[in-house]
Amino acid sequence: MKKILTVIAALSLLAISAGAQELGNFAFGRGPQVVSPEINGDKTTFRLNANYATIVNLVGAWMENPYGQGIPMTKGEGGVWEITIDTPSPEIYTYSFIVDGVVMSDPLNVFVQRDGSRYLSMLMVPGERTENYFEAKKQHGTVSHRWYTSKILGIDRRLTVYTPYGYEQNPNKKYPVLYLLHGAGGDEEAWSSMGRAAQILDNLIEKGLAEPMICVMPNGNPNQMAAQTLGLPTTEMDWRDPANRTSYVRSLCEEIVPFIEKNYRAIAKPSSRAIAGLSMGGGHTISASALYPNMFAYFCPLSAAGALTPEQAAALKKANPKLYWVACGNTDFLWKGSLELKKLLEDIQLPGFEFYESDGGHVWSNWRLYLNTLAPKLFK
Amino acid sequence: MKKILTVIAALSLLAISAGAQELGNFAFGRGPQVVSPEINGDKTTFRLNANYATIVNLVGAWMENPYGQGIPMTKGEGGVWEITIDTPSPEIYTYSFIVDGVVMSDPLNVFVQRDGSRYLSMLMVPGERTENYFEAKKQHGTVSHRWYTSKILGIDRRLTVYTPYGYEQNPNKKYPVLYLLHGAGGDEEAWSSMGRAAQILDNLIEKGLAEPMICVMPNGNPNQMAAQTLGLPTTEMDWRDPANRTSYVRSLCEEIVPFIEKNYRAIAKPSSRAIAGLSMGGGHTISASALYPNMFAYFCPLSAAGALTPEQAAALKKANPKLYWVACGNTDFLWKGSLELKKLLEDIQLPGFEFYESDGGHVWSNWRLYLNTLAPKLFK
Repeated sequence: MKKILTVIAALSLLAISAGAQELGNFAFGRGPQVVSPEINGDKTTFRLNANYATIVNLVGAWMENPYGQGIPMTKGEGGVWEITIDTPSPEIYTYSFIVDGVVMSDPLNVFVQRDGSRYLSMLMVPGERTENYFEAKKQHGTVSHRWYTSKILGIDRRLTVYTPYGYEQNPNKKYPVLYLLHGAGGDEEAWSSMGRAAQILDNLIEKGLAEPMICVMPNGNPNQMAAQTLGLPTTEMDWRDPANRTSYVRSLCEEIVPFIEKNYRAIAKPSSRAIAGLSMGGGHTISASALYPNMFAYFCPLSAAGALTPEQAAALKKANPKLYWVACGNTDFLWKGSLELKKLLEDIQLPGFEFYESDGGHVWSNWRLYLNTLAPKLFK
Repeated sequence: MKKILTVIAALSLLAISAGAQELGNFAFGRGPQVVSPEINGDKTTFRLNANYATIVNLVGAWMENPYGQGIPMTKGEGGVWEITIDTPSPEIYTYSFIVDGVVMSDPLNVFVQRDGSRYLSMLMVPGERTENYFEAKKQHGTVSHRWYTSKILGIDRRLTVYTPYGYEQNPNKKYPVLYLLHGAGGDEEAWSSMGRAAQILDNLIEKGLAEPMICVMPNGNPNQMAAQTLGLPTTEMDWRDPANRTSYVRSLCEEIVPFIEKNYRAIAKPSSRAIAGLSMGGGHTISASALYPNMFAYFCPLSAAGALTPEQAAALKKANPKLYWVACGNTDFLWKGSLELKKLLEDIQLPGFEFYESDGGHVWSNWRLYLNTLAPKLFK
């Protein structure tokens, strides 16, 4: 017994040194051992081993111009480039280094998010605003990637399903469902990665601030089977063709909702169904309220705009939604459109209508805030 | 109706141009539109927009020295660096660019895998060997990230569970379970990302080559709640302390196996339990065969070494395993240790013993091959 355990321990050490890695360490192993990013109270330092680089810049989402060239870092001993900034206010920010004109993520930072086809490093500043964006202390739900068949779209498709902590331990309990839709450029992983949806729901539910709920995050690109990281072919369907325009919302309401209610312990009635979406997904949400007003009791278009015909508005009003929560940032390029939607819904005196104005624009910091704000309003 | 749809379509276009992106496109938007990598039959080209770089190299896992400086790329028109190589034999390879001495992944390639704390671009060369590493044509299982409580380790921990296509549609069917363990430096995402476990099992099951099975991929670092990408604290437990050494294997056999058999429709008997693991996980597998010889009928240590006491060997023989499949690459640093294990198991004439020799060393190309080879042998 002792012998085999010694062997196992030795093995582990060997394997650690070999690192189970296919490529060498280069910059990681060669330069000085440094940490990046390092948050020290109100100062944050970024570092990069780049002894042979000529210019290294830092660009981050907290900057006035996150689309610019960023700010220069300074080369120090051993070829470590460094910059210390005032820690930005609590939020999850993306950032990159620009090394001799080439944008790259921070090789010392394991926290990375994928935004479409791009991988960006994350700076996670703790604070009251971000409290629910970090992992919950104790109670974690399950996040699954699952497939369903869409006859309307003619393909099998992947979706992400969050079931709350306790779902499996309470086999007779049924749960309400939030359908949470991403924007253009996103996919079925957007809300669970950039949106921190599982963390936000875990925390809210653990604190008793939100009802335990299932959250379904489908892929909103009707020509796509799954996120492009799976390498699957897309269909040639022209989804701007009038005949196809409503296909996605139809597939959502006529295929995904029944699929979820068949395969999960979901409460299959409107008062236990909510739909929320950002940007393009906000358009889908508005469209669902126009085309399926009786299916959901909660509609939350986020950073989106869209109109309803008088007939649709009347049908929606008659459906008597519990909540119609329109949220937008006041520097968003869709701010004006959101105000138009607000006016339309106020004019018809829609039950449950609420308008939520935030600072900022068309960015994930707002969408995380909106999810954290709207989830406690659901299913009460 | 028409109006709202027009608005939605317009919205989608707007949102696409805004890109839902928090940082600008820099190199992506500025330079010429290029593709990387591009496989053209027996030639493969890599490209990088890097007008201001002085030296750009390519280093890949197919090279004779994947730990070296790689090979130089050539700067062409518009600042696009390029190199064309002979397409390596079918496999999934990792590669990086080295830009003025700094290692980075390929910004034009959406296929990325995380190896511990590092993100590496993937070159996926199709062919007979890799056929099962790509997404299955039609039948996809579900991949879940789920939490369980370990009293032995004193923490809640995350594991990855694959349930095969049809699991949900056949609510009365029970399934055998493969416990699949990663190596040092890995975590509960290693097999499902680098190991392509879901793709391999989907394909084998779809083709009728493997039995439909559940596959459980736990986190084998006993001081860790989950992959470091979740940012959770680690415990201070010294898992090399003799008192703690067996904790992980105990937690696996006494906590994870019962958890799975309680929460999934698993067949709860030895002939429907298999355990396989690579490197450190191979050590765990050997350890399970020494400490719990009657729990599993299938043991598959991969690229690993380890010994059994005479008493353990006798108990294992008495347990009469259906398969004890030892696999190793003939250039692996554990090749000799594998041969010693082979000799030990041959000497005792262990039922079910098989030895599988492959080319190559301690790398994922072998571990994917081993999973693809061993899964059809299970539960027949």
